[in-house]
Amino acid sequence: MRVDGTPYHGVWIDQDGWSVRIIDQTRLPWAFEIVRLTTVGEVAHAIRSMQVRGAPLIGATAAYGLCLALRRDPSSAAMEREAAMLLETRPTAVNLRWAIERMLTRLSDTAPAERVRAAYDEAAAIAAEDIATNEAIGRHGVGLIEARAQAGRRVNVLTHCNAGWLATVDWGTALAPIYLAHERGIDVHVWVDETRPRNQGAGLTAWELGKHGVAHTLIADNAGGHLMQRGEVDLVIVGTDRVSRTGDVANKIGTYLKALAAKDNDVPFWVALPSSTIDWSIRDGVADIPIEERAASEVATVTGRAMDGAITTVRVTPKETAAANPAFDVTPARLVSGLITERGCCAASEAGLLALFPERR
Amino acid sequence: MRVDGTPYHGVWIDQDGWSVRIIDQTRLPWAFEIVRLTTVGEVAHAIRSMQVRGAPLIGATAAYGLCLALRRDPSSAAMEREAAMLLETRPTAVNLRWAIERMLTRLSDTAPAERVRAAYDEAAAIAAEDIATNEAIGRHGVGLIEARAQAGRRVNVLTHCNAGWLATVDWGTALAPIYLAHERGIDVHVWVDETRPRNQGAGLTAWELGKHGVAHTLIADNAGGHLMQRGEVDLVIVGTDRVSRTGDVANKIGTYLKALAAKDNDVPFWVALPSSTIDWSIRDGVADIPIEERAASEVATVTGRAMDGAITTVRVTPKETAAANPAFDVTPARLVSGLITERGCCAASEAGLLALFPERR
Repeated sequence: MRVDGTPYHGVWIDQDGWSVRIIDQTRLPWAFEIVRLTTVGEVAHAIRSMQVRGAPLIGATAAYGLCLALRRDPSSAAMEREAAMLLETRPTAVNLRWAIERMLTRLSDTAPAERVRAAYDEAAAIAAEDIATNEAIGRHGVGLIEARAQAGRRVNVLTHCNAGWLATVDWGTALAPIYLAHERGIDVHVWVDETRPRNQGAGLTAWELGKHGVAHTLIADNAGGHLMQRGEVDLVIVGTDRVSRTGDVANKIGTYLKALAAKDNDVPFWVALPSSTIDWSIRDGVADIPIEERAASEVATVTGRAMDGAITTVRVTPKETAAANPAFDVTPARLVSGLITERGCCAASEAGLLALFPERR
Repeated sequence: MRVDGTPYHGVWIDQDGWSVRIIDQTRLPWAFEIVRLTTVGEVAHAIRSMQVRGAPLIGATAAYGLCLALRRDPSSAAMEREAAMLLETRPTAVNLRWAIERMLTRLSDTAPAERVRAAYDEAAAIAAEDIATNEAIGRHGVGLIEARAQAGRRVNVLTHCNAGWLATVDWGTALAPIYLAHERGIDVHVWVDETRPRNQGAGLTAWELGKHGVAHTLIADNAGGHLMQRGEVDLVIVGTDRVSRTGDVANKIGTYLKALAAKDNDVPFWVALPSSTIDWSIRDGVADIPIEERAASEVATVTGRAMDGAITTVRVTPKETAAANPAFDVTPARLVSGLITERGCCAASEAGLLALFPERR
C-alpha cells in the first residue's frame, strides 16, 4: 500500500541484495524510519521489540532472519540453533513457527553450500505468497462491504489493533477488503480501536489508513459496544494471531469484548487470516492457545509526541501500582460470523475450515 | 477514606465556614492538591473541567456552588439563573439535577434573607447523607465479597472507572463494599480497568486504593474479558451515572463490554448506587439516557508523568487523525446481576427497584 503516494512493503531486501529492510513500527506514527537488519540477532531483536509485528510479517521477517544466519554459518547445527532462537521471540503467533518450519523443510536436504541461495529464494517466496494471499483475502472479503454499500451509503467497519499492510508484507489481512473497497470507490469508513496498551490502532492503523487515504475515526477501546448499540457499526473485521482447528480466534487483547458486543447487537464479526495462521493441532483455542504476558510497563506508561515535539513516555498511574498485561485473548468460534481466508469465506468451525482445506481432513 | 493515614472527604467546607474545598482530581495521581472555590463560577468550572467528577460528588459540590451563588445574590432570579447554569455543566449524571432540585425545593419558600444559611444547611445535609448512603451501600454489598472469601481465599473484584470515595463525599459507591471488606480483614484484590480515555482507573482508583492500602492490579480496559474467561474475576462491581426505572445502567464508556463478558462467563455483575442516581422518568435507558460526547483530544492524547518528572500530555495518533469520544454507555438491565442501593440489594428491574422504593409506585 502507499505512504503519501509511494508504495511500500512491510519487509523487503535492500538494494545490496542480501540485507533486510523494515519500517521501525515502534517509531510510528511519529517518524517513518526504515531500518536495515544485517544479522539474525538484529532480526530477533526487531521481532521481540516489535519493530516488526503482526503475525504474517513476523513470519516473513523471521524467514529472512534465517537467511542472514545462514550467510554467516550455513551448517545444519547453526541453522537448527538460530531457527530455535527465532521461534522463541514471540509465543502466540503461529505464522512464526509455520515460516521457520517451512524454511527448515526446504533447507534440510540442501547442501550447506547451496543453502544461502535456497534460503533467500524460499523467504522471497514466503513474502510473495503473503502478498498474493492477502490480496485474495481482500477479494473474498470485499463483498461483505459491497453488500452494505448499496444505495450509495457509507459503510462503517470497526477494527481492533493493526491487521493492515503494516502487519503483513502488503495489503494486510483485516484491512485488505477495506483497501480493495476503497479502490473500488465504495464509501468505507473505519472505526479504529486505539488498542491499549500498545496503541497499535492509534499509532499504526490510523497512520496507514491516513497515509493511503481511507476515511477513519479513532475511538477508545471502550467505545465500540456503544457504537454498535447505536447502529453505527455495520461490520467488524479483525485479524488474528492463531486460529484453532475449530475456529476459535486468538487476537489482540480486547478482541473478545468486541465479538461479544457484535453478537449482542447482530453486527457481523469477521476474522481475516492467511491459512498459515491456522493451528490445526489445537481444538480448544480458549484452553490451549498460549497467551503471551508482556511487561507491566506497557500498561503503566504511554508513549506519544509531547507539545515540544519530543517522543516522550509518560506514566499514567502511581509509581507503586502493579499492572498485569495479557497481550491476547481468545474469541470462541460461536461469536465469529465467519473467517475470510485466501481460499474464500467459511464458517468459524472445523467443518467450515475443512471444506476450504480438505487436505487437513 | 484515608490518604496515607489521614481521613479526607471529596468535598468539604473550609475552616472559614463558607468557601468550598475540593481535591483537584485532574492533578491526581501526580499531585495531591486541594483547591478552594469561592464563587459559583469556580464551582461550575471545577465540575466542567472534571476537577470534581463522579455523580454523587458532582451533586454535593453543585449544592455548595448554589450556596456560593446565594452569598452574592440571594434573590430568586439569581438563584434560578445560577441553578440553571450549574445544571448545564454535565449532561449525563442525574445526581446533579437531583441535588439542584432538592436545593431549589428547600429554598424557594425561604425568604432571601434566610437563604444563605438554609442553603448551607441543605448542602451539608446532602453531603452527610451521601456519606451515610455510601456506607449503607458498603454494608449491603460486602456480603457479595464475604460469600466468596470462604476458606480464606482471595476475592478478585473487577471495577471500571472510579466509583470510589473520590467520586463521592466518602466511601464511594462501587468501592464501598470493597473498603468495608478490607476493614473486616477479608483478602480482597481489585482488578482496576485503566478506563480510557481519561484513565480514571489508572489515575484515581489505583491511587485511592493504594493510599488506603487495598491490594489492586491495573489492567488495560481490553483485558477484563480474558481474565474472566480464565476464572480470575469473582465479581464485577461498578458505579453508575444514571439508572433507568427499569434497571438499565449508564456508566463510563466500556462498562457495557464488561457486563457482556461477565454474562458470558457467569461472573456476577453488580452496580452500586445511591437512589439519587435513579431516573424514575426513564424506562428505556439505551434509547433515552443522553450520552455526553466529549472532546476528541481526550482520545488523541494521554497525560502522565514523564521521566523528568514533568506532567506531560502526549499525542498517541497522527495529528490529522479524527477521534470520537462518547463518554458513557448504557448496560441493559438483562446483563446486570443486581443493584446495591442504600436500602439493600435488588434485581435490576422495575419490580426490583419498586420493592425497595415503594414510594415510587
